Amino acid sequence: MAETFRRDKRVRFSHCDPAGIVFYPQYFVMIHELMEDWFTEALGTDYAALVRDEGRGMPAVKVECEFLAPNPLGDVITFELAVAKLGASSVTVRVEGRARGQVCVRATVVTVHSSLRPLKALAIPEPLRASLQRFCDT
Amino acid sequence: MAETFRRDKRVRFSHCDPAGIVFYPQYFVMIHELMEDWFTEALGTDYAALVRDEGRGMPAVKVECEFLAPNPLGDVITFELAVAKLGASSVTVRVEGRARGQVCVRATVVTVHSSLRPLKALAIPEPLRASLQRFCDT
Amino acid sequence: MAETFRRDKRVRFSHCDPAGIVFYPQYFVMIHELMEDWFTEALGTDYAALVRDEGRGMPAVKVECEFLAPNPLGDVITFELAVAKLGASSVTVRVEGRARGQVCVRATVVTVHSSLRPLKALAIPEPLRASLQRFCDT
Amino acid sequence: MAETFRRDKRVRFSHCDPAGIVFYPQYFVMIHELMEDWFTEALGTDYAALVRDEGRGMPAVKVECEFLAPNPLGDVITFELAVAKLGASSVTVRVEGRARGQVCVRATVVTVHSSLRPLKALAIPEPLRASLQRFCDT
Repeated sequence: MAETFRRDKRVRFSHCDPAGIVFYPQYFVMIHELMEDWFTEALGTDYAALVRDEGRGMPAVKVECEFLAPNPLGDVITFELAVAKLGASSVTVRVEGRARGQVCVRATVVTVHSSLRPLKALAIPEPLRASLQRFCDT
Repeated sequence: MAETFRRDKRVRFSHCDPAGIVFYPQYFVMIHELMEDWFTEALGTDYAALVRDEGRGMPAVKVECEFLAPNPLGDVITFELAVAKLGASSVTVRVEGRARGQVCVRATVVTVHSSLRPLKALAIPEPLRASLQRFCDT
Repeated sequence: MAETFRRDKRVRFSHCDPAGIVFYPQYFVMIHELMEDWFTEALGTDYAALVRDEGRGMPAVKVECEFLAPNPLGDVITFELAVAKLGASSVTVRVEGRARGQVCVRATVVTVHSSLRPLKALAIPEPLRASLQRFCDT
Repeated sequence: MAETFRRDKRVRFSHCDPAGIVFYPQYFVMIHELMEDWFTEALGTDYAALVRDEGRGMPAVKVECEFLAPNPLGDVITFELAVAKLGASSVTVRVEGRARGQVCVRATVVTVHSSLRPLKALAIPEPLRASLQRFCDT
């Protein structure tokens, strides 16, 4: 059985638009935060150190996202993340966000383990790969 | 032959991440700006007035986006937009962004003409529908 | 002795600029989050409910801020907040952020308790005023 | 007589909060854009190239800002910028934004010409200094 990674994110004033709900690009900001948490707290790879000290990161190359129900200011969204596909350098994550008993947002994000300057795909190193495997649901 | 709507957007310091390139949620901020420009300058419906005075808008319910090449600070991205599908209340737009002779970003955004408080789909009113039709490439 | 309100905020990828440090407008996003936390967790006024259900808020009318040391990705900033001045409808807060044993950011924000649509100052209601008083350091 | 630099910025959906007006940190995003425009279009120093190719920039060390009137979605803010003080490495700019015949925002931003990695103040090079001098109102 694959693991999933779960974190709550609160909808903040800065996330909201004139309709008083999350402006959709802000869901991707939250999903990026979720990935940072996942790396640092569950995968054993401090995300900030990866970027800052090693000049690597996980840029997105593709996203698909459905916004199924609006999230007003103050909502606590419970995000759940699993790995849908693990390639040589790519990691495809599936993310689902729920609030008040309802799925609000469902996304698939394809990210690529890369050196950042210049941007270039790199094979996922072994200890990270083993950690990622635990979250593979296929 | 369908029309397309085209606008240049410059990559700003605020769009960029520690890799010095556009942080992917910011592409959606640019694409939303593009839609605002399109409504106001080409469709005959002032986007700000639509939201502010009539309490309506075009929230996204689904996006798909490929990030094909990174855009460093200073890039001028030429965005081109067309309507892929026109429903009773939904408008699906196809957006392509090019810089330095290369396609950098390609997105499909499904938006729904809605009242904002509460959020509720509304049929697209006639004069707007006729304008949208000019950009339908199907 | 006046109370202070203290919360940690982690520097996220989305906060950082091409120099790999917090882009200065993002400090104000963090300080706004801090105020939301303060209202909800310490003042007995749920900030989201205030905005969403009562159409009130605390817009800023003036800010002064010094950026004393840069905060790279991954920094945990310990913010501390106190009330510098309490008016009929205004609340002036003093905020200090520290990381790695150093003061990084020091701000004064003048906010005004207001109805939001239309924007109009309102006297601070009594139970909120009493809570605010506990944080007055003068 | 000193020159001033002037540019219009439109209030976008992404700038606005649940009250339908500019969320105050977004004014600093606009003011940063204004400074980028100023460098690139008036000072003869392409801001993007400065950051990207030379690893230098103009981080803010202090800001003071008054928000005098709210700016709803769609407002066109005419920003005007002048240099209030020119130091060996610092540039203090004064910015005023007007919309619908009213001053909405008034800011002073102290920036420092710096190398970015690591962050370190650098004397302003001569051709840039001469250009900046033209905008000194003292």
